[in-house]
Amino acid sequence: MVALWSSRPVGIVGLGLIGGSLGLDLQALGVEVRALVHREATAKRARQRGLATSVATEPEVLRDCGLVVLALPLDRLLAPGPGLVQALPPQAVLTDVGSVKEPVARCWQALAGARFVPGHPMAGTAQAGVEAGVPGLFRDRPWVATPSPQTDPAALEAVRSLAESVGARWLTCGAEDHDRAVALISHLPVLVGAALLQTAAALAAPGGPSPSPPPALVRALASSGFADTTRVGGGNPELGLLMARCNREALLAALDRYRQEMEHLDQLVRSEDWDSLAAVLQSSQVLRPEFLQGG
Amino acid sequence: MVALWSSRPVGIVGLGLIGGSLGLDLQALGVEVRALVHREATAKRARQRGLATSVATEPEVLRDCGLVVLALPLDRLLAPGPGLVQALPPQAVLTDVGSVKEPVARCWQALAGARFVPGHPMAGTAQAGVEAGVPGLFRDRPWVATPSPQTDPAALEAVRSLAESVGARWLTCGAEDHDRAVALISHLPVLVGAALLQTAAALAAPGGPSPSPPPALVRALASSGFADTTRVGGGNPELGLLMARCNREALLAALDRYRQEMEHLDQLVRSEDWDSLAAVLQSSQVLRPEFLQGG
Repeated sequence: MVALWSSRPVGIVGLGLIGGSLGLDLQALGVEVRALVHREATAKRARQRGLATSVATEPEVLRDCGLVVLALPLDRLLAPGPGLVQALPPQAVLTDVGSVKEPVARCWQALAGARFVPGHPMAGTAQAGVEAGVPGLFRDRPWVATPSPQTDPAALEAVRSLAESVGARWLTCGAEDHDRAVALISHLPVLVGAALLQTAAALAAPGGPSPSPPPALVRALASSGFADTTRVGGGNPELGLLMARCNREALLAALDRYRQEMEHLDQLVRSEDWDSLAAVLQSSQVLRPEFLQGG
Repeated sequence: MVALWSSRPVGIVGLGLIGGSLGLDLQALGVEVRALVHREATAKRARQRGLATSVATEPEVLRDCGLVVLALPLDRLLAPGPGLVQALPPQAVLTDVGSVKEPVARCWQALAGARFVPGHPMAGTAQAGVEAGVPGLFRDRPWVATPSPQTDPAALEAVRSLAESVGARWLTCGAEDHDRAVALISHLPVLVGAALLQTAAALAAPGGPSPSPPPALVRALASSGFADTTRVGGGNPELGLLMARCNREALLAALDRYRQEMEHLDQLVRSEDWDSLAAVLQSSQVLRPEFLQGG
């Protein structure tokens, strides 16, 4: 089928990792991309990098767009300026890229109605800003939409077509299910890794609790296992904070269960119940590839 | 200097990941490697793979070796058969590769005295067995020795020379400091990751606690962040179990502090103290490269 959006320019609001990468991929497909950014310095750099066909700080740039991707951080998505809302073309399909869906869906369905499609392309998060966009970011990665019964099916189809055109794997689910799932597999790991870094820092601090291993030794021995376990926990703090703020309830439920699992492991080590600990570690080895088979 | 061990064959007991990799690297340097393994099937496969110059299941193979590397799992290191102990050449330098040092040092310094050098090459652990050995495993990785005041300085120097010949970064420290450091940066991450896998499995189970996200959705969305955070937690269960058994006290101290850090984060999310959560995440982002600068 001919993509519903391909005959008119696509708008992108924000040219960070997601917006910039999308701009590069769409232009490579021959699509005209019009981007709105906040600062003139960003616009200048985005033009140098070729992230969009045209880049402006004035909302008029979005006029004539048939589909607009709101590639903004969660806090700006949840408190959009009136200038932005008024400048969005009245008939355009709208979608976002926020990593928490229920509050975004509530906010934007109230603002824009059936033409808003809550979306979440699940792509890397280590980089941010106008330098972060890269071609091919979405290839084989999930792009989740969380339509409600009110969502316009044609708008949903337009966003699906956009996502699939850049190689993403399209999925739909309910907004609350999405938020509970990402609390478990994306937001909880941030806190788990951050706590591990804080633990290592506290126990290996100069003048820390005795007996402590020397800080220089801990640093010298920290290797790939520690690096991997702490990667997202030592990642972008603004992103981690927004996830926790916007997905607090689901994150608290995940934290609660995680505490139980850690207490169970602690108890097994404390009581030297090695058979039970072996069983947990064996089941963990089996579980991991099951969770990652879709990734 | 001429390496103290290079004029005579080097013995290796066990041809798993560490023993097999060491055999490959030493032979590439022109060293004669004599290996002792437990089973004839292992010996046959090790010969096919060329892991040592000669491989046998009889301890006599180690006769004439000037240095013997005990590349055995922790449980076998801590309960060596009398056949092995008697067959070790009486004047040879002995070293091991166990990931916990205090109990190994205690056991083997009693058995072999000053010529035993407790060692720990910190190389990847995902693979095990006779198929696991690869060339270049030790290059730029730490190889830690934990000599005591009784350790023969010439024996220590021989092991250092061996480690450096295969490209490892040589370090020495006390056995207890080593064990506390690896509890933090290697053994705690195993339990942290295992608990995360168990949490995801429990909350996304069919018929699990309501409200639960659908298991298929959780599996579809689990991506690189979840994969990295759980890599060592979903790793070799035998190894994880041995680490916990042999380093129980240091691991319990690390678990205790980790619980405090997780409780602190939980409390910040629960009380919506976003400024403090932002501060923790910011400090985690700064801490991580500090810990990994040596790696």
